[in-house]
Amino acid sequence: MTVSAESPLSMDIGEERVGAGPSEWSITETSFHPDKIHHSETIFTLGNGYLGTRGAFEEAYPDEVRSTFLHGVFDDVPVFFTELANAPDWLEMEICLADERFDLAEGILLEFSRSLNLKTASLRRDLRWRSPLGRETHLVFERFASLADPHLCALRVTITPENYAGSIQIRAGLNGEVDNLAFKHWDWLGQALQAQTAWLHSRTHSTGIELATGLCLCLNAAGRESSYEQWDVHNHPTLAAAVDARKGQAVSGTKWITYYTAREGENPLRRCLDALQALPELDWDSAWESHQRAWEAEWERSDVIIEGDEEAQKAVRFNIFQLLCAAPRGDEHVNIGAKLLSGYGYRGHSFWDTEIFMLPFFIYTHPEIAHDLLSYRWHNLPGARAKASANGFSGAQYPWESAGTGEEVTPTWVPDPDDRTKLIRIWTGDIEIHISADIAYAVWQYWQSTGDEAFLLERGAEIILETARFWSSRVEWNASLERLEINDIVGPDEYHDHVNNNAYTNTLARWNLETALQAAAWLKQEHSREWQRLSQRLVLKEAELSRWEKVIDQIYVPFDPHTNLVEQFEGFYQRKKIDLAALEPRHESMQAILGIEGINDTQVLKQADVLMLMYLLPGLYDSAVVKANFDYYSRRTDHSFGSSLGPSIQAIMACRVNDDSAYEQFMRAARTDLYDVRSNAGDGIHGASAGGLWQAAVFGFAGLERTPAGWQSHPRLPSHWTRLAFRIVDHGRVIDFDLKQ
Amino acid sequence: MTVSAESPLSMDIGEERVGAGPSEWSITETSFHPDKIHHSETIFTLGNGYLGTRGAFEEAYPDEVRSTFLHGVFDDVPVFFTELANAPDWLEMEICLADERFDLAEGILLEFSRSLNLKTASLRRDLRWRSPLGRETHLVFERFASLADPHLCALRVTITPENYAGSIQIRAGLNGEVDNLAFKHWDWLGQALQAQTAWLHSRTHSTGIELATGLCLCLNAAGRESSYEQWDVHNHPTLAAAVDARKGQAVSGTKWITYYTAREGENPLRRCLDALQALPELDWDSAWESHQRAWEAEWERSDVIIEGDEEAQKAVRFNIFQLLCAAPRGDEHVNIGAKLLSGYGYRGHSFWDTEIFMLPFFIYTHPEIAHDLLSYRWHNLPGARAKASANGFSGAQYPWESAGTGEEVTPTWVPDPDDRTKLIRIWTGDIEIHISADIAYAVWQYWQSTGDEAFLLERGAEIILETARFWSSRVEWNASLERLEINDIVGPDEYHDHVNNNAYTNTLARWNLETALQAAAWLKQEHSREWQRLSQRLVLKEAELSRWEKVIDQIYVPFDPHTNLVEQFEGFYQRKKIDLAALEPRHESMQAILGIEGINDTQVLKQADVLMLMYLLPGLYDSAVVKANFDYYSRRTDHSFGSSLGPSIQAIMACRVNDDSAYEQFMRAARTDLYDVRSNAGDGIHGASAGGLWQAAVFGFAGLERTPAGWQSHPRLPSHWTRLAFRIVDHGRVIDFDLKQ
Repeated sequence: MTVSAESPLSMDIGEERVGAGPSEWSITETSFHPDKIHHSETIFTLGNGYLGTRGAFEEAYPDEVRSTFLHGVFDDVPVFFTELANAPDWLEMEICLADERFDLAEGILLEFSRSLNLKTASLRRDLRWRSPLGRETHLVFERFASLADPHLCALRVTITPENYAGSIQIRAGLNGEVDNLAFKHWDWLGQALQAQTAWLHSRTHSTGIELATGLCLCLNAAGRESSYEQWDVHNHPTLAAAVDARKGQAVSGTKWITYYTAREGENPLRRCLDALQALPELDWDSAWESHQRAWEAEWERSDVIIEGDEEAQKAVRFNIFQLLCAAPRGDEHVNIGAKLLSGYGYRGHSFWDTEIFMLPFFIYTHPEIAHDLLSYRWHNLPGARAKASANGFSGAQYPWESAGTGEEVTPTWVPDPDDRTKLIRIWTGDIEIHISADIAYAVWQYWQSTGDEAFLLERGAEIILETARFWSSRVEWNASLERLEINDIVGPDEYHDHVNNNAYTNTLARWNLETALQAAAWLKQEHSREWQRLSQRLVLKEAELSRWEKVIDQIYVPFDPHTNLVEQFEGFYQRKKIDLAALEPRHESMQAILGIEGINDTQVLKQADVLMLMYLLPGLYDSAVVKANFDYYSRRTDHSFGSSLGPSIQAIMACRVNDDSAYEQFMRAARTDLYDVRSNAGDGIHGASAGGLWQAAVFGFAGLERTPAGWQSHPRLPSHWTRLAFRIVDHGRVIDFDLKQ
Repeated sequence: MTVSAESPLSMDIGEERVGAGPSEWSITETSFHPDKIHHSETIFTLGNGYLGTRGAFEEAYPDEVRSTFLHGVFDDVPVFFTELANAPDWLEMEICLADERFDLAEGILLEFSRSLNLKTASLRRDLRWRSPLGRETHLVFERFASLADPHLCALRVTITPENYAGSIQIRAGLNGEVDNLAFKHWDWLGQALQAQTAWLHSRTHSTGIELATGLCLCLNAAGRESSYEQWDVHNHPTLAAAVDARKGQAVSGTKWITYYTAREGENPLRRCLDALQALPELDWDSAWESHQRAWEAEWERSDVIIEGDEEAQKAVRFNIFQLLCAAPRGDEHVNIGAKLLSGYGYRGHSFWDTEIFMLPFFIYTHPEIAHDLLSYRWHNLPGARAKASANGFSGAQYPWESAGTGEEVTPTWVPDPDDRTKLIRIWTGDIEIHISADIAYAVWQYWQSTGDEAFLLERGAEIILETARFWSSRVEWNASLERLEINDIVGPDEYHDHVNNNAYTNTLARWNLETALQAAAWLKQEHSREWQRLSQRLVLKEAELSRWEKVIDQIYVPFDPHTNLVEQFEGFYQRKKIDLAALEPRHESMQAILGIEGINDTQVLKQADVLMLMYLLPGLYDSAVVKANFDYYSRRTDHSFGSSLGPSIQAIMACRVNDDSAYEQFMRAARTDLYDVRSNAGDGIHGASAGGLWQAAVFGFAGLERTPAGWQSHPRLPSHWTRLAFRIVDHGRVIDFDLKQ
């Protein structure tokens, strides 16, 4: 295996591998590495489907990337058009220990550990610190973002002065001047403080989304009276609580935060103030209890048990955990960003990563979340229609990057990191068009697995028909070859742009048209009144359906029966061959080595389009074809530093052809963020890899397959796995799988 | 006259025109216009050569553009590469009147006036406000940035509760989270509060420039004790002072701020703390007194007296005032930005605006400031050499936009305001090259007027020689026409880019080479040892000087003796003629009407290159030539919305040819910012227009001319001016001019 194990996390995992049960549910770091804080912040992200908060420290730290993102709270930003606006965060807490400010950049850290408990969705930091003046203090920080009440976040610090007595002061504020990597989004609307509470009313600068944030601070020390000050600093109201602590006596400070935005309803400030009234009476244990129960129910539905491989067990749970943190609950107008709610990568924009990589997990464990995510695409059909129309096409062309409104928000140009006077043109927003078929595919998959007729009738069918319509207008007639083509695009493998007849795109487009006809036929037969209404509303006539049949017949899909190979795109075989094995060990992507233009000229893939295609449409290819293409394309793929979307699918296809590389690929996906193997985990969790990992366990190692007789498993467990167990839900029925060897 | 007089300022000036003496020294607004705050902020900018602060209110106001810029404190920013970092400002003050926050967006403004006193460089706001609960309060705010101690800023508010008694609280903080139009620059290093003082230690994020800011707050009410709280909010330490005020009793709060940066010396925090210690003992009157005396001395040297035209008098003083506020004192490593220190326009970058438009004012009133500004260019020769070299040329090619390091910092691309997916290419940084000759010109002018031999020997000659060297490498041999050309450039008239043989550029280049030879000859003769050292250091041999002579002979400079016209650039006569007069009244620039490409195809000028040339090199053109070109180009120039650099020079040339338009053009320049005639005064003062205005008074209306017999004036005063008086300094000698009619 080529994955290095240099990060402190990996060492922790190694140490704990000898331990028993509980550690399977925790991700721990046992030392503090200032040069790795961004990685740790990502890993220790907490979320509750309403918001996500990176694992920054309570106290400020130089170069930290502190962020709390609330679903759907987008605001304009240069270059990236729109981004989730970092909200006034709930973590901020300054602690003064007998007048010395607690600061990890000063003094001496005597002991340190930080642990994310996946089962309870809570983070705990336990440390002993010697101040510059020699005072030693034991501090324990605990936090959770309540899954029971998504508006509530809770933070507690327990402080024990070990070798001194003195005043302990805690300052907890609401900072309206927070920024997104230096760029500020919030306008101030109002604030106030009273006794142990404070609130701040803000609004995003360009999009005008109101946010009301409430704060309550409680400081307790047995037998001692705490005092509270209200620091009414403009746009940063702060409560300061102080108590005289005895040596050895534990002092406990609890900070409650409550968020309300105009996205959920009228007057967020009023709702915030109502919630704020109740906060001083709240007790930690009961809030914790509700939160715990909610997570117990989540794990009941979602857990994947792996025995015989603690690292894999922990990694799978970690990735499921992050998906559950980021998945919106009961909100049809938001999606999941490529980096979940855990970092600035891609600025909260959503890609096909949601539908193809993450959605299967939700379809089979939380179909109601899958329903809402697909409804987001339905609500955003106007944006997709506008994009198609602006490009001279019919139907719905979904944006490559999507945010609040469903408009295309892929940056067109980004600064060149190597030359500040130059810009790099980003083409994906213009020509990476397969996403429209991917969304239709996800709709169909959801329908197949849930039988949610109401959704298909009201929303799903419209998506499938409108994307089909897009494809029928997008194809180009090649008169000399007498065939329809799709030219000048980027396929999933982004190392090659401006290519013609990409096998993945053409085949998915054909599938989309076929499925649209299938859906139309079913609607006509089973729901003729709905079909009449829908086809009239879409002005979809029989002549157009007939044209789709012709397109299906005439669209070119490359396949060579002599070699059994599907050519990734026209002319792929003529590109330069590179012996990837000869370049190992390699520490950067092939694109970084050869350059954007250089890689385009070669056969090196960022991810294997053709294998992805065979995964999604298994019925089209027999096992000999799959094997031939697996062998051909695997050798040409930059598995280690290409797309993070690749390894999980590669693992599944390796299982299908009984290739030994399945476990290596699975662990590559498993380690993506935990071990920061691509050196970019600091930008946020790789959500597609997380979703792909679940698919690799379920559809790869467990070999789950839907048959006319129901779901069947064809286990191909790694040899050291003694058990793989999980449950899925199909048409509302829970089915348990417990595979042992 | 086409200048409209709609702004509140213009009305104020109109009203005050009947008044006597003092109003000639003040710019007043008598009502509050929320939709014009950016314009007012620019107009009411204060500065002391170390820093400049826009006239934002003390209390926060929605959409305000609050900024304090310190010379040389640049930091990286996207698109513009570098910008002056908005510093934690000295104005911030929140006032609570019996628990109601003073806020112009609430309650009722009963009376309001704000006045900038140009003589005392102070701003005063006098208002009566009725709170939402009906409390009426009289508030007077006064502020100045001390010219006597450039690190000191002072702010005082006098508060009189008119119909109530109650607690008056003032909060004064240091906000390290300030931003530049949403972009943050400061990293936190430390802070503390004690009694009535606080400090904040910050550092620019990319350039690492340390800034220490100290704050002292004093609240006084006769016979009542004030209390002070220290709000130690992270990155926003704030002092809160409160006192119980009686009805009708005046309460006075004074805020002192002191700034120290690492640019002036080691350990700015230590120097700040030393200064901070003295602040609580400081009294307003003595600080005010020192500040006043310093400004008295400034006006002694700089004032231009105009009698018979109060508007012109006030406008000239206002523009001189802004130049004096922005001019660095005793700092050779900074320059003056195109928008002085008064706004975000051009992000603090310096252009030829300094050398050609502003510098003459300083040469003739403050030669020591001129010395430092030119020394900035000398210190930045490495950047200019690097630019020449990167472009394949020799010598020194000065950047079109220059900031902290002398590198080229013109943005290469800026977002298209009409289409967020598009970018506009900015060519000036690549091909607007005349600035190198402009700087050489300014060096020579300084030398001619001061006789500062030390400067010429050590610095000035090197600039002139190195820029000459650049020109000799930049010229291109046209074999068919047997001449040297300078092609593919932008002249001062930026409506036309990628032009060949621009008359201004070619003639100034020739002048630069001639002057270099003249300087070399003088050095050889008068300072042979210095010449030897310099020519050796620059590896400048006789052969190279001889080549310069050939370049001078062969460089093409267009002139048609039949028409007496100088063609602005090759092919200008073939461009489309537009009848500008027929388009009046016009409310936007010709470029806005015709588009960037459209205007390029016409003869419409942003400013008249050829007249600019004849102003700078009067000896080359006889009066018939000047008249012919004046008549030809004036009709083709977009005077009202073209370049703000145009009108002042146009006024001077109108004087030279006895054209009636001189006064109109003069007043167009005079009103640029005061009346916001170009609708962009909110971005900052037009510094070139301010400097040009002084030149128009002195070299236009007064007709000052250096002759072998000394300075002579050829007054051409507007008919209603009864007096024009000013002084200049030449070779250290003060010469007074007092022209009456």
